[in-house]
Amino acid sequence: MQNLEIRIPHIMRKLRRGPSVMLPKDVGMIVSYTCLGRDSLVVDAGAGTGFNAIMLGRIAKKVVSYERREDFAKLAAENVKSLGMKNVKVKNADIMDGIEEKDLDLITLDMPESEKAVPLAHAALKEGGYCVGYLPNVEQAKEFFLEAQKSFREVFMLENMVREYEVRDFGVRPKHVGLMHTAYLVFARK
Amino acid sequence: MQNLEIRIPHIMRKLRRGPSVMLPKDVGMIVSYTCLGRDSLVVDAGAGTGFNAIMLGRIAKKVVSYERREDFAKLAAENVKSLGMKNVKVKNADIMDGIEEKDLDLITLDMPESEKAVPLAHAALKEGGYCVGYLPNVEQAKEFFLEAQKSFREVFMLENMVREYEVRDFGVRPKHVGLMHTAYLVFARK
Amino acid sequence: MQNLEIRIPHIMRKLRRGPSVMLPKDVGMIVSYTCLGRDSLVVDAGAGTGFNAIMLGRIAKKVVSYERREDFAKLAAENVKSLGMKNVKVKNADIMDGIEEKDLDLITLDMPESEKAVPLAHAALKEGGYCVGYLPNVEQAKEFFLEAQKSFREVFMLENMVREYEVRDFGVRPKHVGLMHTAYLVFARK
Amino acid sequence: MQNLEIRIPHIMRKLRRGPSVMLPKDVGMIVSYTCLGRDSLVVDAGAGTGFNAIMLGRIAKKVVSYERREDFAKLAAENVKSLGMKNVKVKNADIMDGIEEKDLDLITLDMPESEKAVPLAHAALKEGGYCVGYLPNVEQAKEFFLEAQKSFREVFMLENMVREYEVRDFGVRPKHVGLMHTAYLVFARK
Repeated sequence: MQNLEIRIPHIMRKLRRGPSVMLPKDVGMIVSYTCLGRDSLVVDAGAGTGFNAIMLGRIAKKVVSYERREDFAKLAAENVKSLGMKNVKVKNADIMDGIEEKDLDLITLDMPESEKAVPLAHAALKEGGYCVGYLPNVEQAKEFFLEAQKSFREVFMLENMVREYEVRDFGVRPKHVGLMHTAYLVFARK
Repeated sequence: MQNLEIRIPHIMRKLRRGPSVMLPKDVGMIVSYTCLGRDSLVVDAGAGTGFNAIMLGRIAKKVVSYERREDFAKLAAENVKSLGMKNVKVKNADIMDGIEEKDLDLITLDMPESEKAVPLAHAALKEGGYCVGYLPNVEQAKEFFLEAQKSFREVFMLENMVREYEVRDFGVRPKHVGLMHTAYLVFARK
Repeated sequence: MQNLEIRIPHIMRKLRRGPSVMLPKDVGMIVSYTCLGRDSLVVDAGAGTGFNAIMLGRIAKKVVSYERREDFAKLAAENVKSLGMKNVKVKNADIMDGIEEKDLDLITLDMPESEKAVPLAHAALKEGGYCVGYLPNVEQAKEFFLEAQKSFREVFMLENMVREYEVRDFGVRPKHVGLMHTAYLVFARK
Repeated sequence: MQNLEIRIPHIMRKLRRGPSVMLPKDVGMIVSYTCLGRDSLVVDAGAGTGFNAIMLGRIAKKVVSYERREDFAKLAAENVKSLGMKNVKVKNADIMDGIEEKDLDLITLDMPESEKAVPLAHAALKEGGYCVGYLPNVEQAKEFFLEAQKSFREVFMLENMVREYEVRDFGVRPKHVGLMHTAYLVFARK
């Protein structure tokens, strides 16, 4: 039986690790289902290690990442700095105290009780913008979904399972062991 | 039993349909595992309906999409034009006749016998750039993988399965019917 | 895009259809995780079309299937009779009114509010016997699980996804469209 | 991140381990898609640790398990004996040298180059009986499938992915890490 190895994009390999990170399989879903682009303005909370903000920051015009824990905010800021990114800003603040930025294209929420931030997110998004929740448990995902349905015009929930393959001249098969679950993704379009 | 409905990003819904398209679940994987960004230069073949070129074109600096069939090239160009995108160019040409663009960050290949384009792709990529194959059958994926291993330094193969959920106050469950397979994705980093 | 075709065991193809049936992928899980055998005594509720009782009845010594709806009980009994099975008995009765059979090896519950039958099931099972819930929604599965944890010594919850492949000389791949979900299976061992 | 724990049926937990075993998720599929029952006559090769023969032996009338390696045959026979099973017989013989048993309902093949045993299996099965291959790599599965298509009237190929859930009062989600792949199952009906 093999050990679990998770495929990480090259840019992410050099970063310092901290709290658990959003993996490329989920960031990719967020990018493509929200049609994120070069002109997009993004807010992210909480920053954690900064991986999600950095991945989105490679694409979007500007990303502001809220993180209420000082130690995580510092770690995320260091990771952003180590890559020389100018368009990603880490704020040591609780998003529940308000979102300063306006007319946003995307807000991603990966934090406890994120459903409470949904009305704030709705107010800060531009028409057609997306709020996406990253939710480990079904109950949280349901609560987020039902809360979003109150104000957003399109709400849907996805999960993404990725298998990596062993490819050898003598035989191809999926790796035996892998990640079965990270989180449910709830997408809400204003 | 429900019918199959595939969740399509809002921008894609207005486009004219033609040959089968690369879906957001797969485009998202390509974007995140290759760390595609605002400065990236991309070549894509074949264009088909133009969905992949358009999705990547929202992110990258420039996308050139090769398509040898005149009717498809025309359809893809119309779709690009209808969205007013200036950085996506559709070429009515066979990529096997050569890749003019140089120092590319990403080349995506979704066409028959794409493994034959792997050496051309290697030559046109910059150091650290990615060639990604989108391959419906296992045999093609294997051939592409083994060909890429000859010249690229990191090669891996993924597939992803996305489930959409029904979320109702009285109960949450995945939709009964869904897409079980689109294609295998082979990633090769120069 | 292909239509959905579900692979059904040959014996089941001749039966009359009625309410939705438990599919072989799930019956197989029940059989193997509970070590069902030739000497097993089984109770099943509700009978529905009788598929589950029939599948289990091919293996077990005796299966009694409760069904409170008269029309379904009649349909299930006809299906049992058409196969000439002597060891499967359909009762037009509500299992909530009591389980007459004792020292059972397996009780399978596929009915609304099945968590309410868990204490009855516990009483009717022999030591080491299993109660298995077939639950379409997560909330039901959770309720069943937590109820079972109160009295059973081992409780676990599984779901399984089966993909069928297209195998052609020129290429192998999973069928595009398939069943993403039937139900969650909760296993409780006394 | 959790470690991988595989859920094993209670009867199997006491057995001595040896070569890799067929897991309940796959045995269950074999049982239900072939409609295995109390009257079935089964041949199995290779025996390995004897798990598959034992699981099938709990159900079928008689199981004969071929194993050409003496050490494995001894281990499997010990495991059978430790459970006091009279209807499972382990033969230290190579199935390629011939299948003595006739009019079989099921033959399961889990061994290298099992496609070579397909014609022998066809001859030993009764009309309507099944030969099932358990094949780790795609190439083997394809070869087995195409070989079976020459003589069997119905051939299909499945894979089964099982997720186990964490169920806690505060939240339900799949376990993070799990088994992504064991083998492809090819079913051939005479």
